[in-house]
Amino acid sequence: MARKPLKSDLAWSTVDRIFVRGKDLPGEILGHLNLGDMAFLELTGRVPTPGESKLFNAMVVTLVEHGVTPSALVARLTYLGAPEALQAAVAGGLLGLGSVFVGSMEGVARIVSDAIATGKDARTVLAENKRMPGLGHPIHKPVDPRTVRLFQIARETGHYGKYCRLMEEIAQTRGITLNATGAIGALACELGLDWRIVKGLGVMARAVGLVGHILEETREPMAQEIWERVDEEASAHLKPKK
Amino acid sequence: MARKPLKSDLAWSTVDRIFVRGKDLPGEILGHLNLGDMAFLELTGRVPTPGESKLFNAMVVTLVEHGVTPSALVARLTYLGAPEALQAAVAGGLLGLGSVFVGSMEGVARIVSDAIATGKDARTVLAENKRMPGLGHPIHKPVDPRTVRLFQIARETGHYGKYCRLMEEIAQTRGITLNATGAIGALACELGLDWRIVKGLGVMARAVGLVGHILEETREPMAQEIWERVDEEASAHLKPKK
Amino acid sequence: MARKPLKSDLAWSTVDRIFVRGKDLPGEILGHLNLGDMAFLELTGRVPTPGESKLFNAMVVTLVEHGVTPSALVARLTYLGAPEALQAAVAGGLLGLGSVFVGSMEGVARIVSDAIATGKDARTVLAENKRMPGLGHPIHKPVDPRTVRLFQIARETGHYGKYCRLMEEIAQTRGITLNATGAIGALACELGLDWRIVKGLGVMARAVGLVGHILEETREPMAQEIWERVDEEASAHLKPKK
Amino acid sequence: MARKPLKSDLAWSTVDRIFVRGKDLPGEILGHLNLGDMAFLELTGRVPTPGESKLFNAMVVTLVEHGVTPSALVARLTYLGAPEALQAAVAGGLLGLGSVFVGSMEGVARIVSDAIATGKDARTVLAENKRMPGLGHPIHKPVDPRTVRLFQIARETGHYGKYCRLMEEIAQTRGITLNATGAIGALACELGLDWRIVKGLGVMARAVGLVGHILEETREPMAQEIWERVDEEASAHLKPKK
Repeated sequence: MARKPLKSDLAWSTVDRIFVRGKDLPGEILGHLNLGDMAFLELTGRVPTPGESKLFNAMVVTLVEHGVTPSALVARLTYLGAPEALQAAVAGGLLGLGSVFVGSMEGVARIVSDAIATGKDARTVLAENKRMPGLGHPIHKPVDPRTVRLFQIARETGHYGKYCRLMEEIAQTRGITLNATGAIGALACELGLDWRIVKGLGVMARAVGLVGHILEETREPMAQEIWERVDEEASAHLKPKK
Repeated sequence: MARKPLKSDLAWSTVDRIFVRGKDLPGEILGHLNLGDMAFLELTGRVPTPGESKLFNAMVVTLVEHGVTPSALVARLTYLGAPEALQAAVAGGLLGLGSVFVGSMEGVARIVSDAIATGKDARTVLAENKRMPGLGHPIHKPVDPRTVRLFQIARETGHYGKYCRLMEEIAQTRGITLNATGAIGALACELGLDWRIVKGLGVMARAVGLVGHILEETREPMAQEIWERVDEEASAHLKPKK
Repeated sequence: MARKPLKSDLAWSTVDRIFVRGKDLPGEILGHLNLGDMAFLELTGRVPTPGESKLFNAMVVTLVEHGVTPSALVARLTYLGAPEALQAAVAGGLLGLGSVFVGSMEGVARIVSDAIATGKDARTVLAENKRMPGLGHPIHKPVDPRTVRLFQIARETGHYGKYCRLMEEIAQTRGITLNATGAIGALACELGLDWRIVKGLGVMARAVGLVGHILEETREPMAQEIWERVDEEASAHLKPKK
Repeated sequence: MARKPLKSDLAWSTVDRIFVRGKDLPGEILGHLNLGDMAFLELTGRVPTPGESKLFNAMVVTLVEHGVTPSALVARLTYLGAPEALQAAVAGGLLGLGSVFVGSMEGVARIVSDAIATGKDARTVLAENKRMPGLGHPIHKPVDPRTVRLFQIARETGHYGKYCRLMEEIAQTRGITLNATGAIGALACELGLDWRIVKGLGVMARAVGLVGHILEETREPMAQEIWERVDEEASAHLKPKK
């Protein structure tokens, strides 16, 4: 059968050279790009401008640490059983970044990029999306302080544009908080990122945060105690009374 | 039963404030720390100096992208079956970062931190570790250009010290390339990181790179083709001749 | 804040007794229930009848082994990097059982259970589901031999009913193969299983098969070779000509 | 470069035939082998005898359900964030089956197979393995009722042999409970299974049990409540007093 060729443009190396996305890794990348810039290079194929660097790093940094989330609990409980496999604990923690939590950024990016492309206004977007993602927050209301700061950085760096404006109108029209995932979804569009990969910003950021949780678990463990408490309470009704 | 308290120092928030590792997230972190700095804050509890920032970012950036590795193949093959769960594709790709590949950094950090603490020299370390990690490379020999550049940055920023020297002596004594994971393991010790978490540097960096591979897979797919080729070849000997 | 109680009915134990789903594990389960029966007990809370046991075991056994699938490749490539973490290799292989492959069983179960509940016929179901799952197969056509056998066992055991009939009418109306996942989705409804858990039949079955692939990988490895071939071909266009 | 061939003996199919491990799937497997027998076929290449079937099924059934373990918590907490990806919740739950819990079976199988092969007695084994796996249990003491039952089935089916005897002597010599994982590790040797794959028995069994936990989570959720309780308690010391 005729075979399709396999092709990847991301990296190549020879005995004494290593190139990533067309750049010399030791000479042009190491010492020049920070981790957020490197992520930007991976996702766009080019080095960010200083303004893009500041904004993109702020977006992913926002997503690194959220305290004791279900993801963090999963990483800690996995580490309890397999401390020799730190990578599996981080991976486990990432698995729950699905439709309920981090998925909202992806939804926002998809909806606002489509709306701008087809000329829809805030009312139309809301009519089409009863459960519009990126809106509302259980704690931060009426204002999410991360949204305020991210949009401030976007303005400073010249990246506050039509996607941000639309998302702000959407939140105002519905009369509800524009949360950080909503802001980041819109900002990803301003930076020209493909909405299919926007969830990836949350995934890479959370990987950083989960390593932090595992380190804390080695020093101040909680997984064993959580397990014991839950097990005792959850099965108490089944056990014979003494 | 008496219960141990549950305690985490990583983050907290109120209606209008969000703190991460004791810093105001919108005011002190966003726009000020890049993603590598944020990782450093998570792992050490403090903001890196400019020199630490440059070195630490270079270390993790080195680990982001290695082309079509087994990890990248796993992420792409997982995405083929579950494109709705990008987080699972990244997580899948992380699972193979075990003893064979990324584990060598952890081994180096553990061995050199112990050697320095107990005053062992290169010969003693090698006598105790027949399979010393961080040495040798299938392609980059006699010199790994990443090691050269990372140690150059370490010197520039004042972080080339006893751990790096010991690791270089170990490589010279055995007469073999000091590879990038060996350099990073030593540099992690220079920065005072706990060896238990050193594998985490590779895990967070690779999460960034795997998002890049998934994006490329959406544009230039290879997973389906790999599957078909392997399946056809691997089962050919079982099928009845026509 | 008022707290909701935590409660699980699945298992409890004391010093000398272990109960699972209300049965004495050593006395009533071990030596009496096979692994498929145990899965049935977990999912329904009761021991299957002999007919249910035969049918349910056949359904899950069908899903165990499909040769060198993307899932199997993921398990093998993960094991290559982390042979000390067999559990991670199996878990990795499960991650791709998403919407594209195993998800079709879930879709079938959801659609036919809804159709029977609301009295829809085959034409209506097809009008509502342009991309009806459970239909068509790249190799097995016009008939999937697993479907034939599974429906034969269903008839023998008295479990061929309205869900199977509807699914067969759907396939005939569209003039396309009723594949094994379509048959299993319908049979899961006959057995009264919740459609939300039907994907779980594929997940547990595949876990069994993936252990088999990892065992074969220890004896007849292919992961390293696949990696080398793909890497060489995929990056060839980037390397400088000699 | 010369290429090694890729080869798998597990399965093949044509338009109207499907073979798994040399058996006709519809004709010789479906309706004839239960899920445990199928696992045995995958791991050994042959159909178990009735005695082997009874014993092997009892071994894996023992490992299916252990109530609210860290694994079960991980599956439930993952499902909370990604209910659309049941496969990821199960996979997440498997990731913690490492050295601390399920790994003990593997250790027992490795140690007793080596001891029998080289003629070591119980005292020698214990001298070489200070932390002998398979011994002791926090609840079931002095006797683990699963061990009693499994060895009873082994005797009934003619599979109680030198590996079981050695493991019992080891437990008696140390004066401590022979737990279920210790018994299963020895029984795996009696059945001729490769110790490298023994952890796989626990992994496949737990996959079954985790599907049960996810089903219960859809009906009687606990993940959200656990998250809220832990988050509230763990960060209380950081928040400003009102």
